Amino acid sequence: MNPKANQKAVILLSGGLDSATCLAIAKDAVYDCYCLSIDYGQRHSIELAAAQNVAKSLGAIEHKIVNLDLRSIGGSALTDTSIAIPEDEPGGIPVTYVPARNTIMLSVALGWAEVLGANTIFTGVTAVDYSGYPDCRPEFIAAFQQLANLATKAAVGGQRLVVETPLIHLQKAKIIQLGYSLGVDYSQTVSCYQADQQGRACGRCDSCRIRQQGFSNANIPDPTPYQ
Amino acid sequence: MNPKANQKAVILLSGGLDSATCLAIAKDAVYDCYCLSIDYGQRHSIELAAAQNVAKSLGAIEHKIVNLDLRSIGGSALTDTSIAIPEDEPGGIPVTYVPARNTIMLSVALGWAEVLGANTIFTGVTAVDYSGYPDCRPEFIAAFQQLANLATKAAVGGQRLVVETPLIHLQKAKIIQLGYSLGVDYSQTVSCYQADQQGRACGRCDSCRIRQQGFSNANIPDPTPYQ
Repeated sequence: MNPKANQKAVILLSGGLDSATCLAIAKDAVYDCYCLSIDYGQRHSIELAAAQNVAKSLGAIEHKIVNLDLRSIGGSALTDTSIAIPEDEPGGIPVTYVPARNTIMLSVALGWAEVLGANTIFTGVTAVDYSGYPDCRPEFIAAFQQLANLATKAAVGGQRLVVETPLIHLQKAKIIQLGYSLGVDYSQTVSCYQADQQGRACGRCDSCRIRQQGFSNANIPDPTPYQ
Repeated sequence: MNPKANQKAVILLSGGLDSATCLAIAKDAVYDCYCLSIDYGQRHSIELAAAQNVAKSLGAIEHKIVNLDLRSIGGSALTDTSIAIPEDEPGGIPVTYVPARNTIMLSVALGWAEVLGANTIFTGVTAVDYSGYPDCRPEFIAAFQQLANLATKAAVGGQRLVVETPLIHLQKAKIIQLGYSLGVDYSQTVSCYQADQQGRACGRCDSCRIRQQGFSNANIPDPTPYQ
């Protein structure tokens, strides 16, 4: 028997390419998968519908969407529509960075993991073909895991929480190849920051460009519906 | 000139006794105070109205309430009305513990601090006369500060975030005496987990008992309105 069978894991699922792959990896490792998406007022809210489809396709036991309105804080092109999505090569950390987003999402995942009795959180962060967000780096994840193991009643009781980041050192093309081998239907996923209400991508933003390059490098036809 | 004049700080303000005192301390230290409350679906939502009154009385520049529905996660008597508030002496960490609450609140505060350009977050956690919650301990706060200084674009840019916990080693009576000396009107604050819609306390729950004992030990008349 696989030692992970019937162990619960919380999977942070945005509806994008990386988190869908991450869910497929967790499922392949025989975890019972509880998917969590955060409706934070992102302008590309169509990704939440994508997350629902992905969770269903990949056999998640439950998919929960928690509302947390980060528009009231702003400070990002994803939560403040007065800031345009950049379509040229960015220098440094782009304006699509959402202040403390991964810290917040991991924190909510931690809370739900404790309620479920899950000792594992999966997040599809990657620090290779990415936008340079600080809260995708290995040292950030390590610090969060350290925090998590002080933060909860479960931790006081001796439970150890692990944050799994199976994609963190993978190139986008490798992520796509891995996901294909695990049966991910990437046409269901939405990476674009300004996808339309049918989930069709712009093909021009930072996130679209990284994704297109990934399919090209992987020698896999890009199934993304474009506007 | 005080070096902190016109420096911004985010103050986590629940509407209870400790966080009101914490705001008064930050104000006394000449910070520009930006107060943050989280409407997490707490059953004692009247504390949010208390927070508004306290923020106004103590001269906060802004008071923001962010919605984050933790009822969808449950796991606490404060977010699940099917779990009763205990009225006897609890053993261990009580059922009023909300999974990952302080991690989540500090994370949202971190995001707002970054948007504001604030380098300081104040939280009124205390590890002396308290309910034994794991996310009030000094080692938890230290771990969060370490995380915060890896998590943000501001951190990458060299800004250092400090989490101030001026109450963490103070007895409740000392907190009350300090707050009085700084002009806190404790009749505005709500500590009770089952306060009614007029903000009147039950006088029986864990939080009420700790508060009553604090006023008694401080030799200050308890201004709390009771049911």
